[in-house]
Amino acid sequence: MNKIEHIGIAVNSLDASCELYERLLGTACYKKENVESEAVNTAFFKTGINKIELLAATSTDSAIAKFLDKKGEGIHHIAFDVDDIILEMERLRTEGFVLLNEKPKKGADNKLICFVHPKNTNGVLIELCQEIR
Amino acid sequence: MNKIEHIGIAVNSLDASCELYERLLGTACYKKENVESEAVNTAFFKTGINKIELLAATSTDSAIAKFLDKKGEGIHHIAFDVDDIILEMERLRTEGFVLLNEKPKKGADNKLICFVHPKNTNGVLIELCQEIR
Repeated sequence: MNKIEHIGIAVNSLDASCELYERLLGTACYKKENVESEAVNTAFFKTGINKIELLAATSTDSAIAKFLDKKGEGIHHIAFDVDDIILEMERLRTEGFVLLNEKPKKGADNKLICFVHPKNTNGVLIELCQEIR
Repeated sequence: MNKIEHIGIAVNSLDASCELYERLLGTACYKKENVESEAVNTAFFKTGINKIELLAATSTDSAIAKFLDKKGEGIHHIAFDVDDIILEMERLRTEGFVLLNEKPKKGADNKLICFVHPKNTNGVLIELCQEIR
């Protein structure tokens, strides 16, 4: 795996948290995007070559709504940049990790993504993230 | 703030999690370090220009032991690289954030560090991290 592509943070209000993270990180949000397949609205910030992604639920069925209900606001996942998501998914399966989707799916910010089940990773939800070229 | 310097992950067993993260990240742990002031043992992995820091408690009084008791294993904090930790601490105080230490203290991996209270940051524990030159 390469650099941390982004850290996903679950928030109740995208507008309020955007204002807060602009003050915290000292940089403006550079993109907001709705990801229909995940039922979330997202907002992105650059921190050097890494990104922070704020995630707010657009439906009570979304994974983010369930996370907020159970744990409250906070860090939701770490996304790592990978060169070839198919190869990396195969490598992780061979190592005994459980993947949450069988094939890569389209995520925010022009990426192919796949999640690794947190039960095998000390409770950390890991996302693989390959730029769509 | 600059790049994500590292993500801190609280774990019960440093040895077991080191083995797990070597398989997960596909890279060997490059450093283990005891940080007496925080009562933790740490293990570091490189992921591109970023790092993953595993944290295990060496005392039941440590912040990591309390975190594990309350929330179980998982992401504990995000550390951002800063050029000048004193200036960044002043900037954040001016913006209304609450800092958990008044002056920078010595952290793992040759860093001066300061934590920002998670009550003002959507539940995310943020660490400022300046390389000691």
